[in-house]
Amino acid sequence: MNPEEEKRATPCSSPVFVHNPHLDVMKDDVLYHFGLGTATHNLPAMFGDVKFVCVGGSQWRMKSFTEYIAAEIRMEDPESEYPNICAGTDRYAMYKVGPVLSVSHGMGIPSIAIMLHELIKLLHHAHCEDVTIVRIGTSGGIGLEPGTVVVTKKSMDATFLPKFEQVILGKTVERNTDLDQCLAEELLQCSKELNQFETVIGNTMCTLDFYEGQARLDGAFCSYTEKDKQDYLKKASEAGICNIEMESSVFAAMCKLSGLRAAVVCVTLLDRLKGDQMNGSHEVLQSYQLRPQILVGNYIKKLLKAKAGRSCNSATV
Amino acid sequence: MNPEEEKRATPCSSPVFVHNPHLDVMKDDVLYHFGLGTATHNLPAMFGDVKFVCVGGSQWRMKSFTEYIAAEIRMEDPESEYPNICAGTDRYAMYKVGPVLSVSHGMGIPSIAIMLHELIKLLHHAHCEDVTIVRIGTSGGIGLEPGTVVVTKKSMDATFLPKFEQVILGKTVERNTDLDQCLAEELLQCSKELNQFETVIGNTMCTLDFYEGQARLDGAFCSYTEKDKQDYLKKASEAGICNIEMESSVFAAMCKLSGLRAAVVCVTLLDRLKGDQMNGSHEVLQSYQLRPQILVGNYIKKLLKAKAGRSCNSATV
Repeated sequence: MNPEEEKRATPCSSPVFVHNPHLDVMKDDVLYHFGLGTATHNLPAMFGDVKFVCVGGSQWRMKSFTEYIAAEIRMEDPESEYPNICAGTDRYAMYKVGPVLSVSHGMGIPSIAIMLHELIKLLHHAHCEDVTIVRIGTSGGIGLEPGTVVVTKKSMDATFLPKFEQVILGKTVERNTDLDQCLAEELLQCSKELNQFETVIGNTMCTLDFYEGQARLDGAFCSYTEKDKQDYLKKASEAGICNIEMESSVFAAMCKLSGLRAAVVCVTLLDRLKGDQMNGSHEVLQSYQLRPQILVGNYIKKLLKAKAGRSCNSATV
Repeated sequence: MNPEEEKRATPCSSPVFVHNPHLDVMKDDVLYHFGLGTATHNLPAMFGDVKFVCVGGSQWRMKSFTEYIAAEIRMEDPESEYPNICAGTDRYAMYKVGPVLSVSHGMGIPSIAIMLHELIKLLHHAHCEDVTIVRIGTSGGIGLEPGTVVVTKKSMDATFLPKFEQVILGKTVERNTDLDQCLAEELLQCSKELNQFETVIGNTMCTLDFYEGQARLDGAFCSYTEKDKQDYLKKASEAGICNIEMESSVFAAMCKLSGLRAAVVCVTLLDRLKGDQMNGSHEVLQSYQLRPQILVGNYIKKLLKAKAGRSCNSATV
């Protein structure tokens, strides 16, 4: 274990921050879109041991990740069923195995932002500390072989600037979209050790729309030419953008504000310079979607192993 | 049947427009987030008879709407199971009973925009004509008794302007958010005839965020006071805004561009002047959520009855 890993594996009691004085005077807190609440659920007992949170758009993918991670970290019987903790609502799905929480977030900035507000409050109410959070997702690549995994360096907007614009009381506030660079490097290193698929670190463009917002030619509306599209994607590439998705900017901004150590790991399903349609075979696209799960699953396993080793060494001192 | 209803019930062969010359030269079209496509599915056979589309955030709600409408219009056995047409994906759910299609859209502008791009292309590929589309949703009310149903007059942004900003190739384009005023009036009239709950026509604010974007005091972050919140909501009220939700602006803009006759019908789950938390009992909130379904279900039943009467009269001439 290198010094950086040692540091990460060492508890340093960093809490999950909320920044809202109004929460202190609320009698209880209903996390409406999770179907949970402080009056109805013992959040510290349910979630106090959480150290890793993995989030992704699809409910199915987060369930499959939970089954995968359970087998990897040998926390529980991999054949057992993991109940959806948010079974009272269909907005999001949530699963937990040991210290690993998996939560779906739907598609787009507003959908993941609702989830993150309630997740950050949940971790706060549960008194969680030293939490690492990773978004595992899908994306369109720019000039990369489909199936390449991109770990995000900076999340950029549609004008290639590293910022997220939050509207508060009708006024626009700019927020920083920095992600944890050490975590990104550790994930890249983990992928090298795995040696199963190509992984790169690069900038990620986050858009509010999948079709016109990403210069696709195959939406219901399109007012630009193939050349306009290529010119736009080339400019994005010149700004260091390797892939395009729809959640990373608000994810980065909110995790930074709340003190969560955060990374974005997305596989590219196609090369946008060569096309717009997702017409790869179902099997190939499915196998690509497993890659961020495999990478992050292995990273978590490695960290838990290092931590167990450290505890063991301490016990024998 | 009044002249306006007569006009609505009379086919006038208005197609669903796409505005994209690139679609004409595509060999086939994969509607990726529906798990459907022109090469794999006979879209005219599956959807050619669609005259009404109801959309809503929750997959559960759209399934329940389908069961409700099936019983109402007596198209099929209300006890039978309706298969999810998008069963190959978990992004959206889609159900069909006779001429009525129900589709879920998730939460927020990006999520509904992806669905609408693919829905508009689906209706286009299926050669559908004279389609009416209604979003049935939930919202926060301003100064209204919880449970009030709001039929949207204009959809406004967070600065109280009736526009939607679409980013295309990094540049912002403003789009009109007009909805069909005749349809809104017909829905209001239908609610009066039903006489089961209060319905009003008013403006709807559409935001990109549920917490800070709607001046809530109970998010993970909040940098403003109760007075700031009240001042903002009062200004919204002065602009004729009756309720706040997260999808109406792009819904209005895209439906207008594609020639779909569109309305937004949302129930208010709480009065935002009095609070932020959704802490009504599960049963009460559930009963409120049924109201847009009941209203739109009855409207569809009325129109189909009028159309059947007209066909019947024609046949006897």
